[in-house]
Amino acid sequence: MLEIERKFLVISTQLPDLDSWENHEIQQGYLMVEPDKSLRIRIKGKKGFLTIKLGSNALIREEFEYEIPVEDARSLLTKCGATLHKMRYDLIFEGKHWEVDVFKGNLEGLILAEIELSDVGELFINPPWLGKEVTEDPKYLNVNLIKV
Amino acid sequence: MLEIERKFLVISTQLPDLDSWENHEIQQGYLMVEPDKSLRIRIKGKKGFLTIKLGSNALIREEFEYEIPVEDARSLLTKCGATLHKMRYDLIFEGKHWEVDVFKGNLEGLILAEIELSDVGELFINPPWLGKEVTEDPKYLNVNLIKV
Repeated sequence: MLEIERKFLVISTQLPDLDSWENHEIQQGYLMVEPDKSLRIRIKGKKGFLTIKLGSNALIREEFEYEIPVEDARSLLTKCGATLHKMRYDLIFEGKHWEVDVFKGNLEGLILAEIELSDVGELFINPPWLGKEVTEDPKYLNVNLIKV
Repeated sequence: MLEIERKFLVISTQLPDLDSWENHEIQQGYLMVEPDKSLRIRIKGKKGFLTIKLGSNALIREEFEYEIPVEDARSLLTKCGATLHKMRYDLIFEGKHWEVDVFKGNLEGLILAEIELSDVGELFINPPWLGKEVTEDPKYLNVNLIKV
């Protein structure tokens, strides 16, 4: 499935109370990484997922995601070397769904927001807490953040 | 899941009539390969599978296999570069299950048999068509055969 995603920094002082929104704890790592493909292992809440991401364009990537038993995900995460840990909040703003990721551990302090679009030109209203766009900045790819 | 497998060449003149055994067409490729891990995409009959193999010991490897939609497998196979094509026959000999793989395409003529064991010391009776053991010979790993 083709995923079109734009990613932004977040002005945390402008954020609403996040705890009133649906949220999940996420732990993830990458079992294999090549310049144009990666195999991600994720535990989100109580569920395990395996995701193949294809393509080197951060805006548009092909993604194949499958739920797997959470014990498998736990076991595979131990093979990933570094992992990252974040809380994901699902916010609705002006009819659009935003994923706000509040990073933990050595990335504490970093907050990123993502919006998934149905086409690259899709318009949306910027929430007041939206900071600089970092879609094309490779250092904000989770696969690179994990190396920090 | 830990997989203990031994692999052998096959003396084709000694084989019984294969078509009387359960069989499936297999097409597979590797989306990512590292020395100690690989991500295999397989179509077996009408089903798609994704398999993570971990470990560099050919006799004992950790394997995580998931069924995925066959259309996904078809799409992912196109990203694998080389693929291989074989017929797999499931034979029972003296109470043990053997997988006999008859390769197609540029590997035509190659036939390999595999037995999965519950421990490395498990005994079995050699079928009359069993040739030299190649478990430890890396050139008979499917991931390497694909490069032929």
